[in-house]
Amino acid sequence: MRINLKLMICVCICLMFVSVSIWTRCGGEIPTFRGSFNDNVNIVGAEGSGFEEIDCHINGDYNVPCRKEGDEIYLPFSFIHKYFEVYGKMAIYDGYERFEWSHSYSKVYYPKGKYDPRGVFLYFENYNVEFRERVKCISATEGVPVSTQWESSGYYYPTQVAQFGLAHYSKNLTEPEPRVKVLDDGVTVFGQWSENKRTARIAKALDFNTTEGPSLTMSLEHVLDFVLSVELMLRSSDNSSFTVVLQNREKKERWSLHYSCNAPLIYSKDQDVYHKIQCEESKWSILVRDLLVDLQKGLSFQGKPKKKLLRSKYKVTSINIEGSGKLANLSLSTSRHLQQFYLAADWLVRHQDRNTGGWHNTVRRKGPHGMKDLQPGWLSAMGQGHGMSVLARAYHLSKRKEYLKAALLSIRPFYLPSVQGGVLALLMGVLPWYEEYPTQPSSFVLNGFVYSLIGLYDLITLVPKSQDAAFLFEQGMSSLKRLLPLFDNGAGSNYDLRHLSLGTAPNVARWDYHATHVNQLLLLATLDNSTILSTTAERWVGYMVGKRAPHN
Amino acid sequence: MRINLKLMICVCICLMFVSVSIWTRCGGEIPTFRGSFNDNVNIVGAEGSGFEEIDCHINGDYNVPCRKEGDEIYLPFSFIHKYFEVYGKMAIYDGYERFEWSHSYSKVYYPKGKYDPRGVFLYFENYNVEFRERVKCISATEGVPVSTQWESSGYYYPTQVAQFGLAHYSKNLTEPEPRVKVLDDGVTVFGQWSENKRTARIAKALDFNTTEGPSLTMSLEHVLDFVLSVELMLRSSDNSSFTVVLQNREKKERWSLHYSCNAPLIYSKDQDVYHKIQCEESKWSILVRDLLVDLQKGLSFQGKPKKKLLRSKYKVTSINIEGSGKLANLSLSTSRHLQQFYLAADWLVRHQDRNTGGWHNTVRRKGPHGMKDLQPGWLSAMGQGHGMSVLARAYHLSKRKEYLKAALLSIRPFYLPSVQGGVLALLMGVLPWYEEYPTQPSSFVLNGFVYSLIGLYDLITLVPKSQDAAFLFEQGMSSLKRLLPLFDNGAGSNYDLRHLSLGTAPNVARWDYHATHVNQLLLLATLDNSTILSTTAERWVGYMVGKRAPHN
Repeated sequence: MRINLKLMICVCICLMFVSVSIWTRCGGEIPTFRGSFNDNVNIVGAEGSGFEEIDCHINGDYNVPCRKEGDEIYLPFSFIHKYFEVYGKMAIYDGYERFEWSHSYSKVYYPKGKYDPRGVFLYFENYNVEFRERVKCISATEGVPVSTQWESSGYYYPTQVAQFGLAHYSKNLTEPEPRVKVLDDGVTVFGQWSENKRTARIAKALDFNTTEGPSLTMSLEHVLDFVLSVELMLRSSDNSSFTVVLQNREKKERWSLHYSCNAPLIYSKDQDVYHKIQCEESKWSILVRDLLVDLQKGLSFQGKPKKKLLRSKYKVTSINIEGSGKLANLSLSTSRHLQQFYLAADWLVRHQDRNTGGWHNTVRRKGPHGMKDLQPGWLSAMGQGHGMSVLARAYHLSKRKEYLKAALLSIRPFYLPSVQGGVLALLMGVLPWYEEYPTQPSSFVLNGFVYSLIGLYDLITLVPKSQDAAFLFEQGMSSLKRLLPLFDNGAGSNYDLRHLSLGTAPNVARWDYHATHVNQLLLLATLDNSTILSTTAERWVGYMVGKRAPHN
Repeated sequence: MRINLKLMICVCICLMFVSVSIWTRCGGEIPTFRGSFNDNVNIVGAEGSGFEEIDCHINGDYNVPCRKEGDEIYLPFSFIHKYFEVYGKMAIYDGYERFEWSHSYSKVYYPKGKYDPRGVFLYFENYNVEFRERVKCISATEGVPVSTQWESSGYYYPTQVAQFGLAHYSKNLTEPEPRVKVLDDGVTVFGQWSENKRTARIAKALDFNTTEGPSLTMSLEHVLDFVLSVELMLRSSDNSSFTVVLQNREKKERWSLHYSCNAPLIYSKDQDVYHKIQCEESKWSILVRDLLVDLQKGLSFQGKPKKKLLRSKYKVTSINIEGSGKLANLSLSTSRHLQQFYLAADWLVRHQDRNTGGWHNTVRRKGPHGMKDLQPGWLSAMGQGHGMSVLARAYHLSKRKEYLKAALLSIRPFYLPSVQGGVLALLMGVLPWYEEYPTQPSSFVLNGFVYSLIGLYDLITLVPKSQDAAFLFEQGMSSLKRLLPLFDNGAGSNYDLRHLSLGTAPNVARWDYHATHVNQLLLLATLDNSTILSTTAERWVGYMVGKRAPHN
């Protein structure tokens, strides 16, 4: 009985608090409990209408200093930013200042119509492969990028070579016609070279030999157009080289870009940057160089800041040749995208394994924890697909049989299991997947798989006799539509399905990969009207602004 | 005594907090933003050291009124709460006020040791099946709950019947011995019944007939113990009934709980609540009733508030019998968990299909969008598993063959494909899964699957000749360990894999289901030392305090 009485008293006290609460709900202030913590400072003063400092106790674990104003609690963005990984910055426009909150940082490209393999490759007109930090340089022997991603000494990464080609193919379609300044074509324009007795004109070419005299020089004052193109046949034994001098228009600082038979791939010291070029007896080779890229890579080589150089700040002041050989068709232009595209296509033709049809990756790639390393020689479905996309376009433009042949050959690894050196994996042992990385166990990377599908589609569209590609494309699309939901994590997308193979947490895609997924799905949705492609893309766009899959 | 007092004070303080919390959760009104964009009022004044109002522009879409103090931006919790679905409430303790931020709202139960099927079933000692809103009543003919989840008229839901049994089994092990007040056992205690000429004692039973006189009444003043147990053999033709009168101790309001041969399952009007009871000629039946549950369900029947009734507020003032028949072993006690457990076990024995071994669900269940409805008669792996858990325990305690037989028979549906009326589904056509809901297409509900595994384990442990169960358990564990990563969404867990079957967004588990997943994995990790079970559980615990899977 006594217990009951006490209980009732307690209940009454509780009810009192409920009523206090109800009262405060109606506009009153909750009585502040000022105990040991005396620093609940009312910032405004005694009238109690302003802010108070208050601790936010996060998940029973730690405190964050918050603010209280009336019924509202305010949390500092510095905490929210870290806790949820959202972004924010101050912005002033329209005459007032605000705080801009962004859930993600990447961009969605909405396709303008049905994807056409003759046209730009996705949104690759925005890609600048050569400016990437992990691109060591554009090889002056091959005309394509050299990667340092998995080996710092540098190697040719077929996927990257193809992306370089596809970016230039796309830029060629989207950028305005380049301005071309012909410096010497032996027909209408003859370069103002310095005097040299052993220089002659043979047909359109300039035949030179400076081994017993000063170098041949052409002074220039050329601005804005920094893509050099020249045909050369230099004699290696005479230590021949072709040099362009660039000058900073404000600071007057000069750099010499040397393209030399006997240089290493790339070397740079002080004001000199060296690139090795192809010098074969009696063989013309074409040199296409973005001079600002070469300067930037030279500066990077010296550990100097890697920011993009502004073309408005530089000029070409001279061109020098040394040694002996021939030169023809020298020009500077705003761009040479199509030539650079063909340089990539030709690289792919030259470096394809005639037996496997693959572009073998020559470097070891360290497996993520729990996966074996990929041994040198591995193939990538993404590399194969990108290769197809390049070659199909090259064949479409040129109708040259070597592109056709290489394109069709590149299908082969899609039939070979990844465990046997190919790119084919089977999810749960049944569903075919083309592996960007043919790991053991399988990793099922989404973006690389879709790029391989796009490559197959390019082949089907632009290349005759590609029935195999059609089969592989349909098979892959079927797997994609089946498995796409496994990449949806309710608030973003997963980069791969390694969690299924390794039994780990999902490998969540950062926002730029997520945006790539969205862009890829939007492209595929123009080719296939299964609603799963468009509805997934739409939902994934929503995730980028903070929407989430509903919970039950 | 003093301990109880302290406990009560604690309860009161808790209630205090609840009330304060309710206030903040309801009272999160966003302070009105004053005027147009230009009046960013500095609240403190001109010195610029205080707060300013500032707009937060959310994902380029809408504005939220924020505060700025120095370099820090403060965002209102009312926004954060809605945007991220996190929880917060004011709390006062240790003499100061703070804001408590919670990422989730559910509880993890860490197992104390290896799971023992003889012991409590998970944390079911905390379950109160009968208080659930979707429980219409505890049937007084069967002694088990009647569900309204998928059919408002009410039906027996085998899964729920089993949970009722498992909760009482677990409470029996964890709660203190009940206080039992014997009211009439015909041996040591004889009830103080009102006078009636046609009443006699036959052995231990009271033989009564009130058809030609007033009803038989026993006046009482009994508090706190509200679980009635009585053996009855009532004559239906005499419209017999057994009635308990409850009174609110403060308000003096009275209710009569009638257990009557001729009532509907449940009926209630004004101060009377009716439950139908079993009345078979010459057959004793046992009636075990939680009177406060019966009162509550009666009030619910009248649409009155559904909150739990406090046992301290009521007393039993009389028991009345009418009609004719026999009565024996009448008592009131704090609980009768074991009897209630056996009521569930007996229901399962009685209602098992001897042919299929299944507890067929008699109601249609509407499929989620894109799935067919489950037709009446469907089986649930969870229901079967829970049934096993009940029967294995019942056999263990009683060694009665009928429990053994029913337990072994209940395995059968695990071999029958869900499309053929069983519970077996195959993910990707290859990986076996036991379906809580045998939907077409399959849904792969996680918690129901694990409950079925626990049922199988209970069988293996407590029942002889359960080799089939051992095979099914191992097969299921193997699938679980393989597929568990697909339920991990990097910030929580998925309730099922319907997204894979339907091509939709994942069906994210709300926090209470997520906590169930964690609790289940923690239990299984005591039986199987594969690291995936414990590491997944640990990661999923982290998700409940805001941790996330890393992105690449």
